[in-house]
This record gives sequence, C-alpha cells and structure tokens, in this order.
Amino acid sequence: MWVKIPQLWLHLQPMTGPRQSPSRKVQSRRFQPPRGTRDFYPADMAVRRYIESVWREVSINHGFEEVDGPTFEHLDLYTHKSGPGIVSELFQVFSGKDEEQIAAIRRGEDAPYALRPEFTPTLARMVAAKAAELPRPIKWFAIPSHFRAERPQRGRLREFMQWNVDFIGSDDSAKADAEVMACAIRAMEKLGLSPSDAWVRISDRRVIQEAFHASRQSCTIDEAFDLLDRRTRLSEHEFLSHANHVGFDVHAFDLQLANFSNATILADRRRIRRPTEVTEQFFSLLDQLESCGVRASCVPDPNIVRGLAYYTGTVFEIIAEGERAIAGGGRYDNLIESFGGPSMPACGFGMGDVVLANILHDKGLLPEEVVMQPLRPHVFVISAGKEEADAELPRLVARLRKAGYHVRHTYRSTRNVGKLLGEAAKCRARLAVILGDELAEGRVVLKDLDAGEQREFPLADLEKELRAALDR
Amino acid sequence: MWVKIPQLWLHLQPMTGPRQSPSRKVQSRRFQPPRGTRDFYPADMAVRRYIESVWREVSINHGFEEVDGPTFEHLDLYTHKSGPGIVSELFQVFSGKDEEQIAAIRRGEDAPYALRPEFTPTLARMVAAKAAELPRPIKWFAIPSHFRAERPQRGRLREFMQWNVDFIGSDDSAKADAEVMACAIRAMEKLGLSPSDAWVRISDRRVIQEAFHASRQSCTIDEAFDLLDRRTRLSEHEFLSHANHVGFDVHAFDLQLANFSNATILADRRRIRRPTEVTEQFFSLLDQLESCGVRASCVPDPNIVRGLAYYTGTVFEIIAEGERAIAGGGRYDNLIESFGGPSMPACGFGMGDVVLANILHDKGLLPEEVVMQPLRPHVFVISAGKEEADAELPRLVARLRKAGYHVRHTYRSTRNVGKLLGEAAKCRARLAVILGDELAEGRVVLKDLDAGEQREFPLADLEKELRAALDR
Repeated sequence: MWVKIPQLWLHLQPMTGPRQSPSRKVQSRRFQPPRGTRDFYPADMAVRRYIESVWREVSINHGFEEVDGPTFEHLDLYTHKSGPGIVSELFQVFSGKDEEQIAAIRRGEDAPYALRPEFTPTLARMVAAKAAELPRPIKWFAIPSHFRAERPQRGRLREFMQWNVDFIGSDDSAKADAEVMACAIRAMEKLGLSPSDAWVRISDRRVIQEAFHASRQSCTIDEAFDLLDRRTRLSEHEFLSHANHVGFDVHAFDLQLANFSNATILADRRRIRRPTEVTEQFFSLLDQLESCGVRASCVPDPNIVRGLAYYTGTVFEIIAEGERAIAGGGRYDNLIESFGGPSMPACGFGMGDVVLANILHDKGLLPEEVVMQPLRPHVFVISAGKEEADAELPRLVARLRKAGYHVRHTYRSTRNVGKLLGEAAKCRARLAVILGDELAEGRVVLKDLDAGEQREFPLADLEKELRAALDR
Repeated sequence: MWVKIPQLWLHLQPMTGPRQSPSRKVQSRRFQPPRGTRDFYPADMAVRRYIESVWREVSINHGFEEVDGPTFEHLDLYTHKSGPGIVSELFQVFSGKDEEQIAAIRRGEDAPYALRPEFTPTLARMVAAKAAELPRPIKWFAIPSHFRAERPQRGRLREFMQWNVDFIGSDDSAKADAEVMACAIRAMEKLGLSPSDAWVRISDRRVIQEAFHASRQSCTIDEAFDLLDRRTRLSEHEFLSHANHVGFDVHAFDLQLANFSNATILADRRRIRRPTEVTEQFFSLLDQLESCGVRASCVPDPNIVRGLAYYTGTVFEIIAEGERAIAGGGRYDNLIESFGGPSMPACGFGMGDVVLANILHDKGLLPEEVVMQPLRPHVFVISAGKEEADAELPRLVARLRKAGYHVRHTYRSTRNVGKLLGEAAKCRARLAVILGDELAEGRVVLKDLDAGEQREFPLADLEKELRAALDR
C-alpha cells in the first residue's frame, strides 16, 4: 500500500465506497505473473529464506560484510563493463513521468536505466566512489535480485536471487582467492552437498594464455577462449570441427597444458616441466585451499575459461552432475580501475538460487523440518471455552508476543481442546498453553507438543516456564 | 557475476587479458547511482537489516507468514487497481530482447511491465490464484523493494523497502484489524518509539460517509474525501476556501461528526447520539485494541480518510510529529474479488523504511551497539609471529568458521599482539585467540575483549572454551 495518495488520479478517477460510488463497480479480472518470474507462497519463501540464511551466515562467519545497491542502474553502467551486446540481455527501465525519457525511447534510443543483471558493476561503482576512505581489504557480500531478459528454461529464470562475494584490495591473491572459494564451499557443505554432489573446477586464465602462446596457434586468443569455454558442452567431434574451422591446433595446445594438468591433479609441482610465475602461483593457491581445509572439493581443470572478459587470473566454477554451473567466479584485477577507482586487485563469485534449489530439491536436501525450523511457533494458546478463558486469551497472546514469542491461536469457533491441539500440531507449534478450568484458580496447563508431556502451574509463572521448556 | 557467458557479445567484443589483448584497454569511467536510489555500504546495510529484522520478527511472532512476488509485474495489474493515472507514477519495464515490445513502445504504447510501486496488487493476484487451497485466514507479510517514478524528497525515494502485513479471509473484522494494528505498533515499540513519538490515527471511512450524507452536502463524496484527506496539511483558511469552492459545508459536517469524535476520544459509546452499525463496529475495534494492549497508541481521528479508493472500512495511519506518515493501511474488502478471487474480507498496512529510518536516526534510536550487535565477530585469531603459529592460524580460522563461528584475523603483516588486539577491538570482536609461545606446548590464550579477562588452556579445548565464554 502506498502511504501517500497519488493525488493526480484522485481527480481523474471516481472514488469507491461500499455504496456511494456506483460509478466504479468491482471489475473482476485475473492476472498472471510475468513469465520467468516467481510467486513465493509461504512454503516457497521458507526455502528461499533458508538458502539465503545459509549464504548470509557463511559470509558473515568468513568476515564479509553485507552491502546492496539499487535494483536498477544507469544502463551504460552495464555496457561499460560488458559491451553493447549486453543490451539485448537486459530489462530496460524508464520513468513513466519523464517526457524526455519517453520521447528518446520513441526516437529509437535505449532506455536510461536497466534492471541489474549482475551485481559486479554496482560493486565496482561503489568501491570506486569511496576507495579512499574504505578500510582494506574490502570484503563484501550481497544477496539481491537479478534480472535477465532471456527465455526461461530449467535452472534459468528472468528474476532470481544471487549471492555475491567479493574480496578487494588484498595483495596476497592466493590467500584472497582461497578465502573466497572456501566461503562458497562451506555454504555447499552447510546445505548438505558433499564434494561428490558439487565440486569446484579451478584454473587460471594465464595458464591457458601461456599454453596458447607456447603452442603457436594461428587463430586469435579470443577464438581459442570461446572454443575452450564450450569444450565440455560440445561433443569431441563438434569441438574438433569448430577448432579446425578457426585454425586452433587442439593437439599442440593440449600438449602444452598436459604437464600442468598432470602436476596439479597429482598435486606435485615438481612435475611442471617449465615452471613459470603463473604455475607457481597456481600451486600457492592449492596450498592455501589445503590450509583452509577445502582442497578436497577442488579439481584443477584447465578447460575452464569462464567467458567473461574481465577475469585476469584464477577462474572457478561450482559444478554438479548434469546441471548448469551453481556458481562462477574468479580474479578481476582491472575492474575497479575501469570504474574510475584506483588499481585494486579483486576476486569474487556469484551463486544463483535457481540451479542450487533444483539440486537441493532433487537430492532431498530441503526437508520440511530443516526449512521450517526457524518458523515454528513457540506456543499455541487455547481457550477451553469458559468466558473467563475467552477473555484472557487475547490479553495473554498479546503479552507473550510483546515478550518476543511467536504465538498463535485459533480463528475457528471450536473450543474442543483435542481439535485445537491438532491445529497447534499442524502449524508445528512447540508448546500449547491451555486456559481450562484451572484458570479459575489462576493456573494454566503447558503442554510440550514434541515430548507429549504437560505441567500445570500459576499463570504468573508462564514466561519462566516457557523459557525453561523452550531451552530443553 | 553471471554464471553464464553472454555468448553474443563474445563475438562482438575482443576479450581482455592482462597482456595479450591490447585491443581493449581499461577505459576508466565513473558512474553515479540513479537519482533517488541508495547505495547500502556496510554501515547503511546494518541499519536496513536491523529494521527489517524487527519487522520480520514482529510479523512472525504475530503469526504472519512471509511471501514475495516478482519485482516487476504486468503494468495493467497496477492500472486495474488504481486507474490509468498511476502510469505516470511507475517505472516502466520492457525486455531489450523483445522486438515486438520495443516496437509497441516506439508506437506510443506503454511498456508491458512496471516496477512494483506497492505490494497489494501482487498479494491480491496471488491470493486469487490459490484461494481455494489456501488455509484461512491468510496472514501474510512481505518486505520487498518498491519503486516510484517521483521526485525524490525528504522521506521519499524512488526505491525503498516496504513492510506489508495483510490479514485476509476473517469474518471478525474488529479482531483482524486490531491484530494487524497491534503488529505495526509492536514494531514501533521494539524500535524504541513510544506512543508520544509515533501514534496511530484511526477512523472508519463509513463513519465519514454517514456524516457526509447526514449533513446533506452539495458537493460529491469524492470531492469531500479529497478535501478531508488534505485537511491536516492545509491551513484552516486554505481548507475553508477550498471547501467553499466545491460547496462542502464544513460546519454541518463537523457537527455530524462531533458526537462520534467526542465519544471515541472519551472511549464512551453512550455519548453517541445516533448509534449505527458502523459506530458500534468502531467501538468493537477500540475494545479489541484494548485487549491487545495497544489502545494507548491509538487516537480516533475522523479527519483521516486515506485517499486510496479501495478502502472500505477501518483506515489508519502511523504519524510522527512533523514527518510524512510512517505507515498507512485499512480494510479493503473488495480487492481480492476484483482480482478474480472470491469475495474475501481483508485488512493490511504498508510501512516504508525511509521515513522510519529518518525518525529513528533523529531520535538517536539507531545506536551502533544495537545495530551492529548481530554482526559482532565471535573471535579474532592472532598469531604472535612464530612460524608454527603462522602455519596454525589459517587452519584454526577455517576450523572455527566450519564450526559456525564468525572469525576474523588480520591481513596486515604486523605480529605485534598489542596492535592486533586493537584491530580485534576495532572490528568489535568479542573474544581473541592468541597463538603465542604457549603453542609449542599445544596451549592457547583466550581473551574476553568485553571483560578484559584471559585464560590459557589446551588448543583441543578451544571450541568448548569458546562456547562457554560466548554464553557468559
């Protein structure tokens, strides 16, 4: 509801009253949500909040601080980072009040704003704006809505939540990269996914670049990266045929990478035939992942490139069998500078809720008792029907809510205690307070609905007894 | 970050590597957020989350369940509720990929979607879609972002958070209205606002309608409502001059209302000279507010009308001296039906974060120790500099984070324990673990930074000691 009246239309539109304004009848009409967006009914919302609470808790435990920005930004914030091709992936936004904006769009221009397709440009803008005063390193996370003007498919919607974790301004890139990855991996663990359910493929774009140059290719590095990024999604035949078409010598390239691959998989840096600064740094990253206790979830894999142009070092993806990537990220040391900030090393990842929730659901990792746990009522208050009890009920409910308890009661007319205990159990209440005949002597019954036990005591002791019962 | 590559522009735009792609240099450019939107840096976000957590906790304690819907909806969802005048208050949205949408806008049509200016239409659509299966009453809350294409002013932004609480499908309107209002008032209390800081003006549109008809006015009821709604914002002279202009007899109207006003203010229903069903219902509401223990925050005030066309009974606003309304709501019994659902009584309110945060800030009710409390690190881990301690630190940090603690450590090179204890205090850590010379014997020091005390014990006991120290 708006707190203020839109004055304008008060003058355009007759007002509705229950009888006085026959001029505007209730016109009934059904609506659908926009395609590719979601309605979150209470059970759906409980799942979303459960996932978000794991993301938030893990982020905070790893020392990241939460930030957020506008849901829409100037459209050129996104083209600045990603080039003009991004425009067709965006939902464009304009003010219905601004005649100039409307006229410009009718002339064929893009709208001035776009719904956020990713958080990184907002993050870079925010860091650049306050780079001088922000304490370093900057460790931020955000969990906003994101939007893509794409065709909805499994694992891909037009509006989705995405967890963003970024570590900016630390010169020790191996430590920063490892901490960011450890944060993502801890969230997987906490959600119940084992390293065989979901694992991290890691690489370093510079290793691929070195192999590309050492193998003296006749295609451009962009063509090679584009192909390599699609390697796991193409059949071997398709891949080779595309490679042949652009002039990418797969054999020569793979030979260059083979030493690196073998060495990293065997975790034996002595197997690198021509160690470089880049391969040394990759082994430092593996050492750091070991220190953080997450090395077992990580698989070095030079085939990952992550198409995004701005990655400058480490790249990684979280993968589950047969699904789109759960998360993706890496090091992007040039980005803050490109948004007008100082040169600052940076690393981060994004993890959407759609693929993740599909996987958790398919693996039975969203059981109701876990998802609903924080939403269980502390107490369900029951009146057994005496007038005194009926009068006491709203006062008691208000008193307990004021004391911070989640309190429910029936809205039905029944005073059958058995039926009402059933209603209490159905809404998963932990305790029931029964205002029965004992109320005449100022006493109430407290029933533990999980344990099945009950106790009777003076009404004045209720808060003390509730606390004790909930601590058990 | 996007998890997927925007394939399209990979072909349009050369890729950046640290050395290999001189074709795309870092073009540095600064950006501003859109006017009237906010960047939430960590301190701002802590305030937002604090307010949202109070809203959420109070909602849940009152038995409301959280829901959410899309950030953008079909534009005609909003015109259906509010009439065509709303369009100029909306941010319009279209897909940059959809040629038909773009062509239609260029022809002069509205965009197909709009950013949510209020939650009620989404709520009504969602209730209507599942009315048959949803258990009743339906008690929902939501805390999404909302958007208005208006000029930003104090207390009014183009993007803001709004708490929506709705109670649908209960025939006992006085109880439902009182429970909804009690929920709003409890949130005010919990945020530290007393009834003299912020109070609830309540009325019933039908009382005003009765007074309008009984005073035999020559203007329309819409003209009268429009004027009455602005009464407190106009000077007496302006108000009378406008009234005179449209033919609204203020004296006759006030006389009709005087009995009602006196009776409600004195809480004495016998003072109503001509009691009607409507005035009786209003006293029932006051009784219910009394039962809920929030009557002291409520002031009957027939001058409140709440311009929105869809209110059908109770209307209320939360007011603070010299500010825009903090919240507004009321009963809207026709709305669900107008969105294709069954006829269902309903009542709710919306409370934005902008005016509220201004008031809390001005009254000193956002002290850092309250806002930052949930974000305090449990423990700050310090290495005093021995090689063994430096090696243990990342393992210990990872182990404690995995156990669910919020753990920080320095990213600076200093090993001066005094300086590091200063850093720990600065980030508000509750405890510090010091890996000093004792580590050689497998022992560590735990310092309570609030109490100033410290203990030494075996490293293996750390989790147990941490739990004990945090429980103190």
